[in-house]
Amino acid sequence: MHTVLRSASKEVVIGGDQPFCIIGERINPTGRKIFQEQLRRGDLSRVEIDISEQVAGGAMALDVNMGAPLADEAELMVRAVELAQSRTDLPLCIDSSVVEALEAGLSAYEGKALVNSVTAEDERLDAVLPLVRRHGAAVIMLPNDEEEIPEAPRRRLELVGRLVAAAERYGIGLEDVVIDPLAMPIGADTSLVDKTLETIHLVKERFGLNMTLGASNVSFGMPDRHAIGSAFLPMAMTLGLTSAIMDARSADLVQAVKAADLLLDHDPWGANWIAAHRARTAATP
Amino acid sequence: MHTVLRSASKEVVIGGDQPFCIIGERINPTGRKIFQEQLRRGDLSRVEIDISEQVAGGAMALDVNMGAPLADEAELMVRAVELAQSRTDLPLCIDSSVVEALEAGLSAYEGKALVNSVTAEDERLDAVLPLVRRHGAAVIMLPNDEEEIPEAPRRRLELVGRLVAAAERYGIGLEDVVIDPLAMPIGADTSLVDKTLETIHLVKERFGLNMTLGASNVSFGMPDRHAIGSAFLPMAMTLGLTSAIMDARSADLVQAVKAADLLLDHDPWGANWIAAHRARTAATP
Repeated sequence: MHTVLRSASKEVVIGGDQPFCIIGERINPTGRKIFQEQLRRGDLSRVEIDISEQVAGGAMALDVNMGAPLADEAELMVRAVELAQSRTDLPLCIDSSVVEALEAGLSAYEGKALVNSVTAEDERLDAVLPLVRRHGAAVIMLPNDEEEIPEAPRRRLELVGRLVAAAERYGIGLEDVVIDPLAMPIGADTSLVDKTLETIHLVKERFGLNMTLGASNVSFGMPDRHAIGSAFLPMAMTLGLTSAIMDARSADLVQAVKAADLLLDHDPWGANWIAAHRARTAATP
Repeated sequence: MHTVLRSASKEVVIGGDQPFCIIGERINPTGRKIFQEQLRRGDLSRVEIDISEQVAGGAMALDVNMGAPLADEAELMVRAVELAQSRTDLPLCIDSSVVEALEAGLSAYEGKALVNSVTAEDERLDAVLPLVRRHGAAVIMLPNDEEEIPEAPRRRLELVGRLVAAAERYGIGLEDVVIDPLAMPIGADTSLVDKTLETIHLVKERFGLNMTLGASNVSFGMPDRHAIGSAFLPMAMTLGLTSAIMDARSADLVQAVKAADLLLDHDPWGANWIAAHRARTAATP
């Protein structure tokens, strides 16, 4: 299954036989007070820095979220999408919980975007999926419904079945469905990540769909976060995770992903691995 | 399935519901010219250093191999086993391709050792398994036979079936069988590690046996070896690897294993993870 994302000039393919798709998480004001304040003033200078740092780190697509309190999210989304597309040819992931912001972002975007995200709640599906269809986008779908974020992998799998049915009902091909198997903080309960891993395994076996998740959630609240993420991503990739929204500025995390690509035979002749080593060696004085 | 190893005073359990068993690889003269020369002179001072470095790094058992050219391996094995047991209470893995050295090491060892190793060759099985049985040891078994080291995971699984039958024939319980799924260098062929991972998955599904492997093989000949190993071990653990003979002196590798233990819910309340963080922080000036 290949999910194809496009900017005006570049195509990125997400798939089980492809290098893992690193989606940069950074253009997001959640938990960033100064950035929120800047956005309220209409100042997007921080977005330019976030773009260049993530591109330098190895991002293959960029998530764009403009959800700052007391700011006009739809208007900021349009400006951020236009700014990002003027600075990089990476495809974008239009990220909002507000349907109007998703719509504004998709209208401003040139190419085929990834929409982040829709849950298995009927009201959300009915609001978001027509947009996805109309703009020919792909969409991240989360297996939680009105009642709960289920813990049990089998229950999540059932909800994935509902998401798949909804996508089909709205004429969205399964290649444009990217499932988020719901990554939870290991610090909250040490059994939660094992359930995410089992969900990844089940979704791959049953549906063969592409999957992405917010990788930073896993280590939230724990010490040595990058070491946890650097183990988690290769583990999840082994079971079928094909993308993550992650800290693309972290050399450790990106290297862990590239090592897993190599080990899963997604780096022919190890060419990328050896080239990255040479680039690092050349950069060291 | 629990494989229990013992020294005179300490017990280590290998199992799918246990913390991953880190077996230190270092007491082995292969590729170490100075150490080989020392062993030929009967000088075991290097072994003492290897023991203390591996214990400090986090080894939970120690492999002991005395296979230096032109040296009396059986005699050195007896001395090394006695030396190791006087310096550490970690269980030992008696490692030799020479049956007499295995026998000498097992006779000198106090506790329940792990024997490294036997292949699926009839002559080897008939020579090694009676020893294992007589000394009440556990044994690492490799799915390669007289003809080949098979690449195909299904063929390896067939040979595991033969190994299991041989163990049963010699009265060795399956809890004392540890399968080596054969880790090959990714640099030789980028499809080889994926085959090892698939073998791990198949052996777990079909037999539920404990498994160990020589983790350093995977990155042999490649740059940034520890980064490759740090991705490989969590990946293999996710599929069912329960132990590795590895560089226990590498903080990166040990931390990757501990992160995977945490994520697979083998570190209740994250207590080990947090304690290790505090120890590192306290050690930094």
